[in-house]
Amino acid sequence: MKVKVGIVGGSSLLAGYLIDILNKHPFVELCYIDSEHYTEQALNKIHKYLKSINLIERKFDKYSKEFIQKNLDLVFVAKSHTESMNYVKELYNEELKIIDLSGDFRLKNENEYEKWYGKKHIAINLLEKAVYGLTEIYRDEIKRAKLIANPGCYPTGIILALYPLLKNKIIKPERIFIASYSGVSGAGRNPVPGKNLFIDAFNNIIAYKVTNHQHTPEIEQILNNFSESEININFVPHITSIENGIFNTIFVEPKDNYNEEKIYEIFENEYKDAKFVRIKKDRIPEIKDVVDTNFIDISIRFNKRNNTILIFSVIDNRIKGGVGQAVQNMNIMFGYSEETGLL
Amino acid sequence: MKVKVGIVGGSSLLAGYLIDILNKHPFVELCYIDSEHYTEQALNKIHKYLKSINLIERKFDKYSKEFIQKNLDLVFVAKSHTESMNYVKELYNEELKIIDLSGDFRLKNENEYEKWYGKKHIAINLLEKAVYGLTEIYRDEIKRAKLIANPGCYPTGIILALYPLLKNKIIKPERIFIASYSGVSGAGRNPVPGKNLFIDAFNNIIAYKVTNHQHTPEIEQILNNFSESEININFVPHITSIENGIFNTIFVEPKDNYNEEKIYEIFENEYKDAKFVRIKKDRIPEIKDVVDTNFIDISIRFNKRNNTILIFSVIDNRIKGGVGQAVQNMNIMFGYSEETGLL
Amino acid sequence: MKVKVGIVGGSSLLAGYLIDILNKHPFVELCYIDSEHYTEQALNKIHKYLKSINLIERKFDKYSKEFIQKNLDLVFVAKSHTESMNYVKELYNEELKIIDLSGDFRLKNENEYEKWYGKKHIAINLLEKAVYGLTEIYRDEIKRAKLIANPGCYPTGIILALYPLLKNKIIKPERIFIASYSGVSGAGRNPVPGKNLFIDAFNNIIAYKVTNHQHTPEIEQILNNFSESEININFVPHITSIENGIFNTIFVEPKDNYNEEKIYEIFENEYKDAKFVRIKKDRIPEIKDVVDTNFIDISIRFNKRNNTILIFSVIDNRIKGGVGQAVQNMNIMFGYSEETGLL
Amino acid sequence: MKVKVGIVGGSSLLAGYLIDILNKHPFVELCYIDSEHYTEQALNKIHKYLKSINLIERKFDKYSKEFIQKNLDLVFVAKSHTESMNYVKELYNEELKIIDLSGDFRLKNENEYEKWYGKKHIAINLLEKAVYGLTEIYRDEIKRAKLIANPGCYPTGIILALYPLLKNKIIKPERIFIASYSGVSGAGRNPVPGKNLFIDAFNNIIAYKVTNHQHTPEIEQILNNFSESEININFVPHITSIENGIFNTIFVEPKDNYNEEKIYEIFENEYKDAKFVRIKKDRIPEIKDVVDTNFIDISIRFNKRNNTILIFSVIDNRIKGGVGQAVQNMNIMFGYSEETGLL
Repeated sequence: MKVKVGIVGGSSLLAGYLIDILNKHPFVELCYIDSEHYTEQALNKIHKYLKSINLIERKFDKYSKEFIQKNLDLVFVAKSHTESMNYVKELYNEELKIIDLSGDFRLKNENEYEKWYGKKHIAINLLEKAVYGLTEIYRDEIKRAKLIANPGCYPTGIILALYPLLKNKIIKPERIFIASYSGVSGAGRNPVPGKNLFIDAFNNIIAYKVTNHQHTPEIEQILNNFSESEININFVPHITSIENGIFNTIFVEPKDNYNEEKIYEIFENEYKDAKFVRIKKDRIPEIKDVVDTNFIDISIRFNKRNNTILIFSVIDNRIKGGVGQAVQNMNIMFGYSEETGLL
Repeated sequence: MKVKVGIVGGSSLLAGYLIDILNKHPFVELCYIDSEHYTEQALNKIHKYLKSINLIERKFDKYSKEFIQKNLDLVFVAKSHTESMNYVKELYNEELKIIDLSGDFRLKNENEYEKWYGKKHIAINLLEKAVYGLTEIYRDEIKRAKLIANPGCYPTGIILALYPLLKNKIIKPERIFIASYSGVSGAGRNPVPGKNLFIDAFNNIIAYKVTNHQHTPEIEQILNNFSESEININFVPHITSIENGIFNTIFVEPKDNYNEEKIYEIFENEYKDAKFVRIKKDRIPEIKDVVDTNFIDISIRFNKRNNTILIFSVIDNRIKGGVGQAVQNMNIMFGYSEETGLL
Repeated sequence: MKVKVGIVGGSSLLAGYLIDILNKHPFVELCYIDSEHYTEQALNKIHKYLKSINLIERKFDKYSKEFIQKNLDLVFVAKSHTESMNYVKELYNEELKIIDLSGDFRLKNENEYEKWYGKKHIAINLLEKAVYGLTEIYRDEIKRAKLIANPGCYPTGIILALYPLLKNKIIKPERIFIASYSGVSGAGRNPVPGKNLFIDAFNNIIAYKVTNHQHTPEIEQILNNFSESEININFVPHITSIENGIFNTIFVEPKDNYNEEKIYEIFENEYKDAKFVRIKKDRIPEIKDVVDTNFIDISIRFNKRNNTILIFSVIDNRIKGGVGQAVQNMNIMFGYSEETGLL
Repeated sequence: MKVKVGIVGGSSLLAGYLIDILNKHPFVELCYIDSEHYTEQALNKIHKYLKSINLIERKFDKYSKEFIQKNLDLVFVAKSHTESMNYVKELYNEELKIIDLSGDFRLKNENEYEKWYGKKHIAINLLEKAVYGLTEIYRDEIKRAKLIANPGCYPTGIILALYPLLKNKIIKPERIFIASYSGVSGAGRNPVPGKNLFIDAFNNIIAYKVTNHQHTPEIEQILNNFSESEININFVPHITSIENGIFNTIFVEPKDNYNEEKIYEIFENEYKDAKFVRIKKDRIPEIKDVVDTNFIDISIRFNKRNNTILIFSVIDNRIKGGVGQAVQNMNIMFGYSEETGLL
């Protein structure tokens, strides 16, 4: 029997990729896709490049709390930050599983939420119920969760690159420097002059929100769970002239002398059962290694000259950093093998 | 009266840009352009996109020590690393001024040279004579120099971003983390599979030589002149899907508490007479701000949360990071205004 | 004495390029730059990448008919189609010279205008006064003109590629097939979803207005002046993943048997005094040959197998296809050498 | 029972894509992948971005006629033009099925082959045995074939766009004008300075072989089978700044007056059973519609003003224009549903 699945906010850029993955999933019945602005219009009106050719003429549903709660096993909420929580609050009940793709349920502390997202949280009681859906770390909690806060794209690549080192007390928590480069699809489909127009982003590199990106507290909150002392990362995001993918270059300082071999052992051990983490020794991964996949590729280099560990991680921001990971979580929640529909 | 100028190694990618700048320079007579492989062939055979339309049918000269020494006031050597020193050694005399674009005369220590460039230096006596051509720092020495070691593209953007902070003892010299992103023109014109083919570099990000790039000791050597204690930088270069330009993102730690305003004052003071340094407060510079210009744009942000100074610098790797700076140096050596032919 | 020049509509993408050219022009005093939306704001608020560093903090003027008519010798109108005619109508008098960059005064027939631009023309009496500013063809008329209708980007490259063949009665006027490819800057700065967003245009090719582009009647009107019988072109524009430039591939049928040599003679003869037309025999021009220049490069190939003449022309849509040609026209109107400020 | 399949020339760019498709095919056992230069080295040594993670460490086989003939049901030959025929000649026998990806067996006439490919054909007797593998036209012949000449990338998109019009005698065979734009992956992996280096192809458009591309006679040979009179096409290929995909813009002249509706009916009727042909009425297809798929998308527009039919077709040059179509043919040869492993 198939899982009955729906999508709230089905016209977002991310929702389009999600539809394509769910449509190929062997155990999913995609029963519901709504859109506020495109109700009753065909999916390919807005998702021009949809791969799911069987769905291009399907009409967007009108949002219906009743339909969702009565008919679905799981709903993905693909609304934007600060808007999503309204839907989650309204839909949440004991029967329905929810995977929220926005940032609205990632931070546990409502004050932090207000500080970074600029809005009062309206479903505070659900914050503690929400499980952070970084599969490789929270597999067990995800299995039992009713509400998943699916991780942000930057946090996915950064946390998985750092967590083994913190958990094993290899590095100094107070010195973490991260330069991240993202493809333009990360900026979504709504025009943002100066950022996602062709004449802005093509042949260009743009740093943005260099001290105040909302993914900063998300990364710190999770890493703090594995750190002896409080973490304050330096996280500098950039956008550059590629479509998809995030490249993270991370500098950390080991507490003692470690060499590459030892560090690789730690990573390989930590991720030995992780289906979508590839530890690469020979070659530092490139964006093209992971684009269109749910993999995260990680390499480590040790700079002996000044005792610094360099960590490189790459993901496809849309897949592992978005809807691929969401489906990975869905698989776990319903007892399927983690890779189902994702290879 | 015009300066009589020549180019040794005139068929390199960089030489093409140099020809275009010199051809527009009001006080330059471009008397000589040689090429080993294209002797007697037209310039546009290899420089397809040369802007100097008056020169496209000019033939490459055959290398001639005699011609150069007898007829030229200045020669630019545009040969590749380890090859260049042969020409400089042979050409060097009291009458001729030389600007070497390669890395061969940048490191003062011949052992360091051998370690990073993989070849024994063959003109050790010229190493101390060579002046490092970073105009903004060594203007006076450049004025009197016979031999200029023109800076590397990465060092130009990185040293100018760090030197005011070290000179004014603002930051801890032992903690410098640099993530640099370069356009593909930095990889030159010779095919390097995996790096500068379209199918490799387009839509991709590639980290390379992450602990052993030959620009590392060059940066350190200069910065050490201004530092209380020895510097060991972390320098991670990447190549990405743009044509020209370098974007440097630098993390450093202040010794005391400083705020952005104070740091900006230091930069503005340091570069108040520098014609090609633009300190940008309001907006972090982008690649497109400097492409096709000789400018370096610099911004500073102070991250209070963890007491880190972020420095951003951008240049066009071909111009300020290459032939533009070389012409800037030429201007100084011959008493012209620094900007002549460069605005 | 310098020409006193102004720009109406100074915040458009094209106006930014115009400012950079005028600012370097030795005989121009740029007295006035207005903007409806950015009045009193600095130029670099909207023109982020302006090369004219002396102007970046200059404030946009408020539109003033009085100022323009009283103080300026020439005004460039850089408003969009259907809007521009309002300004031209209001500003037109015997003293002021006007170069209109829009399509509003290119078509002589007001009904054609209404048909292709979707709006009634409001300054019909000026239509016949306007001189079509394709310098290479209408040099003499431009000299005496008060009002210039500066050509569209596509028409510039297409007309100059076809006019010698029609004038010399080489080809059949009824069979002209044109496939044109433009960079995304041709789509302007205002977001047009599906066209000029990075995620739309990058790594993509899009055909648009394939039977009804408004440049069609403009091309035909001019070519008809040189044709024995009425011309009905097939003009198919595309947008592709480059910044700037237009590549035209044109198929025509000769009336008799001609070979490449003869056709080249005709072109070389026709353009022997044209400073910005380069006829290339050896190599079909590429976009990179002309980007950032005011040149148009043209090649011809004769396909003997089926008696077809292929014509290739490339321009930079912003320069020769826009503001470069406008300044070329200005030079002629004021008696300067055609290339002044454009090389 | 699975089909035992092998690849001769497994290190070519195209072979990498073929491996990824075959590896996911439910009825294929990929028994053999050879490489001349990489024998005994791992597949990912040369196929850096291989999606088939189970295969990245597999070693390339050494070419073995014996192994192939004894163990395989089908072999794909992925050698380059003029080299491929040596392998096909040597391997051909009654038991083995061969799909040749090169141009060596596409032209029926050995003199034509020599003229366009510059080499004497060495397996003339196989030319008539070879079936042209354009699935939508030659499905029945493919079913019974021993040797398939898999179509070229340009011919696939062009023939499928023209054949219904010729077969139904709609258009004049003597007037066919084709402008084709290809992504850079079509130029393969070996460096070709001036063509597939990043600094050449990025942000550029290049026309090449504009009267003598070797795909010209291939297109004509097939179309002649459906034409009343001999066809001489004008085929102008270009390369532009995208990774994958071909966009064909075709101009033809109808014999009588036809309108779009009638022409669409013809196409829809012709391709009603074709699984990978999508006729698009509402929107002219874009490269992004077909990239990473085996689809060809076709649109028609009728230009009433001058009685011209415009046909637009797009494919992914690697898939439908290469290995996807090859696997489509394999499916037919072994009685599988045409789409197996391709959706």
